[in-house]
Parts: sequence; C-alpha cells; structure tokens
Amino acid sequence: MNSQVWVGVDIGGTKTAIVLSSEPPATLSRVEFATLPAEGPQRALDLIKKNIHKSLKARGMSPSDLKAIGVSCGGPLDRNTGVIQAPPNLPTWVDVPIKSLLEREFSVTCRLENDANAGAVAEHRFGAGRGTQHMVFLTMGTGLGGGIIADGRLYHGASDLAGEVGHLRLTRSGPVGHNKAGSAEGWASGGGMAQVAMRAVAAAQKKGQATLLAECLKVGNTISARDVAMAAQQSDAVAKRILEGTGRKLGEVLAILVDLLNPERIVIGGLAMRLGDAVLAPARKVVMKEALAPAAAACEIVPAALDECIGDVAALCVAMGF
Amino acid sequence: MNSQVWVGVDIGGTKTAIVLSSEPPATLSRVEFATLPAEGPQRALDLIKKNIHKSLKARGMSPSDLKAIGVSCGGPLDRNTGVIQAPPNLPTWVDVPIKSLLEREFSVTCRLENDANAGAVAEHRFGAGRGTQHMVFLTMGTGLGGGIIADGRLYHGASDLAGEVGHLRLTRSGPVGHNKAGSAEGWASGGGMAQVAMRAVAAAQKKGQATLLAECLKVGNTISARDVAMAAQQSDAVAKRILEGTGRKLGEVLAILVDLLNPERIVIGGLAMRLGDAVLAPARKVVMKEALAPAAAACEIVPAALDECIGDVAALCVAMGF
Repeated sequence: MNSQVWVGVDIGGTKTAIVLSSEPPATLSRVEFATLPAEGPQRALDLIKKNIHKSLKARGMSPSDLKAIGVSCGGPLDRNTGVIQAPPNLPTWVDVPIKSLLEREFSVTCRLENDANAGAVAEHRFGAGRGTQHMVFLTMGTGLGGGIIADGRLYHGASDLAGEVGHLRLTRSGPVGHNKAGSAEGWASGGGMAQVAMRAVAAAQKKGQATLLAECLKVGNTISARDVAMAAQQSDAVAKRILEGTGRKLGEVLAILVDLLNPERIVIGGLAMRLGDAVLAPARKVVMKEALAPAAAACEIVPAALDECIGDVAALCVAMGF
Repeated sequence: MNSQVWVGVDIGGTKTAIVLSSEPPATLSRVEFATLPAEGPQRALDLIKKNIHKSLKARGMSPSDLKAIGVSCGGPLDRNTGVIQAPPNLPTWVDVPIKSLLEREFSVTCRLENDANAGAVAEHRFGAGRGTQHMVFLTMGTGLGGGIIADGRLYHGASDLAGEVGHLRLTRSGPVGHNKAGSAEGWASGGGMAQVAMRAVAAAQKKGQATLLAECLKVGNTISARDVAMAAQQSDAVAKRILEGTGRKLGEVLAILVDLLNPERIVIGGLAMRLGDAVLAPARKVVMKEALAPAAAACEIVPAALDECIGDVAALCVAMGF
C-alpha cells in the first residue's frame, strides 16, 4: 500500500466537493455537500475535514497516505499564507486560514489557489489547452473569470491578481459586472446576460413583439442566462439576438487578449461551453475584425473540455502544485 | 587584448545608430547616420556593415573580437529567422534577412528583436524597471508600442506579437492609430495627440478662443505633439486640456494592463517621459478609478529612465540575448 493520493477541495458558493485521486485527472472518489455560506464558514470547514477523513478511510487509507491537499476557491485570497479573504460568493468567509487549518489537521502540505487560475491550469494540463505554451482560460459563469498561461506556466502577476479579465472596461456604461457598469463581466457573463435580457424584454414588450422570455419573467420574476439559452434553442428571435450580442461583446474581450498576449489558444468554460457556437461564432468574427490579423490568425478560440468536472480537476491541480 | 565587445544596431525610420560596448549599458563608441528608407535598404545595410568594421578598427579590434550583434528595429519581423518583414517606418525594407547578412559578414551570432520589446528589456535591466519581476514598458512616440516582462523575462507570445498595446480599442471611433480609429495608439501617442489637437484648434477657432496652437497650424500646416507640449508650458488652455485628455486616455490603457497583468511597475518612455506629470498625473488618477483597487495600488507608473539612449541600450540588450 504505497500508493499515495492527492485531495482536491473545490469550494463554491453553492456546493463544495472533495475528490481523491492517485493519478489526476482520474478520481478515486468524490463527495459533495452544500456550502451554505450564510451559516458562516465553520460548518463547511468541519465538513471538509470530516469528508477528507471519511474518503481516506473508505479506501483503507489514513492521512499519512496524502501527498498534498489543494483548495480551489473564489478570490480574493492570499495564496502564500493560504488565507481565503472575502470572496463575493462566500460573504461570511472573512480571512479564513484554510491552509494552516488543513495542514494542522492532516500534517501535509495544503495549497490554495483562486478558481479561475486553477481552472486555467486544469484545462492546460488535462483539457482543451493541452500542448500549448501560451493560453488564456476564461470562465463564463455568473461572473467572468480568467487565468493566463504564459510560457507554459500560470502567470500570477505581482500580487496574484493577474487575469482579472472581467474587470476590463468595454463601454462607458452598460450592464454591471465586477461592480463596474460596462465591464467585460457586465457584458459577457451569465449575470450580465440576465441584465441585457431584462432590458431586451422590456423593449420587445414596448414594440408588442412576442418573446418566450416575457413568460420566464412572468413566472420567475427574473430571466436567467439559462432561460435565454433555452428560448434561443426554440428559435426565439429576442433570445437569439441576446446570445449573438453577448458573443460579440465576448469577442471584444478576446480581441484585447489576442493583441496583448498573442495566445495560441483561448479556452472558454461555463456558459460558452454550453452555448457553443451561438456565442463563439460571433465572438470569433469580432476577433478577426478587431485584433491584429496575424495574432488573430494564430489564436484558436475553443470551448473548455473538462466540462462539469473542471472544478474537481482544478482543485487536484492545485494539490499537485504549479 | 581579450576584451570582447557587443555591437548594437538600432534601425529607426529616421536614423540608424551603431554602438559598441564591452559592458552594457556603457558604450565605447557610437556612430549614427540617416536611414533614408525611401532609397531602399541596400544603402543603409552597406553603411551598417561599414560602420561596424570602422568602429572595431578605431579601437584596434577586428570581427573576431565580437561577442554578438543585436539589431533592434520596428516590427513586423521574424525573430527566429532574423528577417525584417515590412515595418511601417521602413516601407522599402521588405523581407530583409539582416541576421544572415550580418552573420555572414562578421562570422558571429546576430539577434533581431522589435524595438518595443528591446526597449522593455533595456528598461528592465538597466532603467526604471530594475528589480521588478513583472513590468510593462510602453513607448509613446509617433505610435504606441509595448513590451511585457513576465516573471522576469520578456514575454513574446505564440508568434512574437505579444504586447501590441497600441492596437487595443478604447472607443468606437476617434483618432486613428495602428490603422484603427479609437485605438490606444490613436488616443495616447504623438500621432494621436496631433489629430486631437487639429480638432481642438478647429473647435477653439469656432468659439473664438485664442490658442498658440492656431499659430503653429498657420506656420507649419500641422500641429505636432511637441507644439502641444510647448504651448502647454506657456499655459495655453487648449494645449493643457489636450495633454490632460491624452493622459486620461493613457490611464484607460494602463488600467487594462493593470487588471490583466498585475505588474509591479509600468515604465513609459518617449512623450510621457518628456511631458512627465502633465500626462502621467491624470493617467494615474484614471488607473486608480478604473482598475481593481489592490492591483492599482500594487503598480507604480513611472517615466522611463534611459531617456535618449534607450535605443542604443535596447540594441545592446538584443545582442546580449534574453
């Protein structure tokens, strides 16, 4: 029994997953529980410890079989001290020293990294970024996160804040994302798409134009990115226009990345992966028009490959170190 | 006589300089001649060879005393094959294989790099970027060039096109730079400033507002960035407003760099160095407002230090390799 394992802990605003692996990206086991950030961090921290112990035991292992623990989590966080500072999706997690907590409990190295950076490494090592030296990873969820692989390695910047793609300004005003109206996250994320959809429905109703999104609004009082995607699949004209507009704005963001970083590949996870060419086709078109021609020609724009398991693999990559 | 020397060749649209150095950035000798690109590349290439031979001879040296030759030049160029492809400032220099020409002539390694990247390395090694790991260099001349130092090394990207800061879009329309209306180069370069000045003078004349720039226009039929700077120094209100506007637009560019690359320092050469706080103060203000607060706080924005000799030192850095 000299086989040792990595543990990945993926802490999200909704749920937390614990995975065990002797050979990432394959996993030996996986457990998941609700994070419930409103109840404060203690309950989830206890569950993390308990579930790591339980997962080890279930495979006849003990903490001495651990190679390392990796925690992937929303920022801001301090990677060096291993403290989760106050992520917007975990509002009660203020200055949680997760690294020292887990190192004390398991007597093994624990590493902490923000989820977008961890996702970038995961896609680079095991997903759609394999084989590249220069890659940008974007994750289009409620927000818009980013991670940069430069010369084959994750680029952190001076204070671990590199890759904050969602905060770039696209327009003077517009939908809000990352606390900034007109930002990349405002225009090219699920949250931003919902804001655009609300306005589009109001405009459609004014013109007396029918749209399935008006029904969504009536039922749920809001419109989600998922609603837009489903309505577009049913050929709803308003929804299709919203997706195309989101794709074009995403293209403007990508053009900035292409001109500045000249990546071989931009890998996009989350919504862009699920929506595919409905968003990526208009985005690619804008990149060809907006970015320098040879840099645009050198850059593939592709959906992420790790799909729903990206969080697990990302946390394992953090455990493995990079 | 075992002291060996580096040769730097800085090819610009106006003049070409040849420097010898045994210990960069100090130089042993320097010669300069007009590039005259309208006459084709052959004349300048012959002068480069002749002047390297002459410079060596003047110090009692021969080609066998050369460590390497570095050529710094506007892009596009192919760094690996050492071919100057067709820089906008050297319109007749189409596919000039300068590396092989000089290697054949002097039997020594010749390296080629674009001037903005070479300038970034020069400021990083010997100028205002010393001691940093993460730095961006911008050069505000007729255009707006950029070079990125990531993790202590020049970042080239997938096809040597990284750092094309001047091509980023700031607005839908506006002054033209890098063949793009509303680009960073359009707004934050000498060429862009001249375009803004032409409009500002027309507007001032319409309102009957006096400005020294109207005189410049009468005399020279155009307004240069230098005219604007001189008029501003004489407290011309229109000129001062132009400088501040340029500074604010520069700030928008810097905010993108700060959010994306989280550099410790942004070093700005050319105009920004000469204009100083007239441009940098409004730029810094915009960065504090536009970029993520901790990333903005982590980044110093400073003028370049190598001043007029940056081209010489840049070419020597190319010779030294990086």
